[in-house]
Amino acid sequence: MSEKLFIWTYDWVPKGPRGFVRDLRLRWAAEEADLSYEVCTVPFENRETNHLDRQPFGQVPFLTDGEITIFESGAGLLHLARRSERLMPRDPVGEAQTLQWVVAALNSIEMVTVPWWFLTITSETDNGLGDWMNKRLAQIERVLSEREWLAADRFTVADLIMADVLRVKKVRAHGDRPATEAYIERLIGRPAFRKAHADQIAHFAASDKTRAKLE
Amino acid sequence: MSEKLFIWTYDWVPKGPRGFVRDLRLRWAAEEADLSYEVCTVPFENRETNHLDRQPFGQVPFLTDGEITIFESGAGLLHLARRSERLMPRDPVGEAQTLQWVVAALNSIEMVTVPWWFLTITSETDNGLGDWMNKRLAQIERVLSEREWLAADRFTVADLIMADVLRVKKVRAHGDRPATEAYIERLIGRPAFRKAHADQIAHFAASDKTRAKLE
Repeated sequence: MSEKLFIWTYDWVPKGPRGFVRDLRLRWAAEEADLSYEVCTVPFENRETNHLDRQPFGQVPFLTDGEITIFESGAGLLHLARRSERLMPRDPVGEAQTLQWVVAALNSIEMVTVPWWFLTITSETDNGLGDWMNKRLAQIERVLSEREWLAADRFTVADLIMADVLRVKKVRAHGDRPATEAYIERLIGRPAFRKAHADQIAHFAASDKTRAKLE
Repeated sequence: MSEKLFIWTYDWVPKGPRGFVRDLRLRWAAEEADLSYEVCTVPFENRETNHLDRQPFGQVPFLTDGEITIFESGAGLLHLARRSERLMPRDPVGEAQTLQWVVAALNSIEMVTVPWWFLTITSETDNGLGDWMNKRLAQIERVLSEREWLAADRFTVADLIMADVLRVKKVRAHGDRPATEAYIERLIGRPAFRKAHADQIAHFAASDKTRAKLE
């Protein structure tokens, strides 16, 4: 259980997604849990095909933990949550609540926010997912106006992923949801998020320098 | 650990979604694992508001297991997987593989198939998600052409949810993916799926009769 973790991300990404590449979720969780980790890279170039044996969608992150390699940031978070009580309580009710809210972030919120965001890139007008997204965001606003944390009255990996899903710039700027906004601020104000975020920004900035030297 | 399970669904749904309402996922898993369960209902009418205290998005299913109530079908499946080795192996590598593929079904495949399907209802032309979906379906086709099961060389709850995501009629009919088609056929040919599916169809058909008597 004391194996060092390896968090895999790209060697470089354009400026736009920096601070949002999903290795951030695993960095953040490792920081919260004080787990020792190292960041490794696969090339951004040819990412669709260069690491399909480890990630069949050509995405990052994935996580190596001893003999285990696991992809999907949500799965990586649940895996890390099994390693540290700081990410998920150990009583069955608290664990079930954490699990349900992690999946809600992935499959009820992000299922509409990411396709909505994707379509805003290609289309200026309402893209057909706006009503659905507004409904979901209103439902989450209602939940967050009634409680500080999603699960078990404490910080868990469910808050980590929900905040990361909700803080996407265009989504966050869409509509007025004070409880959601306060929740995001509270979560991204945590030292572990700030460390993880600064580290990701620095990681990709360093690769800019390497690229500049090569060019 | 021998508590009876209660699987919650609607009392009635229109004919279209019958056989696809997500309580099917939990019924299927319970059948695979030979877990004893009972089906309970919340009213379809006013579903957006009548059970928000138990499911903040007004959806079904949710699952009661002793003192635990858990929503999100993906979370329910992972919860049941902890109760039965038939749904997930117990070695750490097999467990991590199962977890990653459950999340891949929810967050890499269903994240695009469901919004794509949703937009086909309101728009006849290409809805902007077609290329993304085609790419994801091709990636899964590649994986399924190389192996029989997603995780641990055996049936797991990852296959259950991936097959349920892929068998949605419009998605299944979109394009030609022989390995995916064979995979779906193999999964929905399992006695546990057939029992769960027949039970769901019968459940909603019975509510038609009740409604007819009342009207």
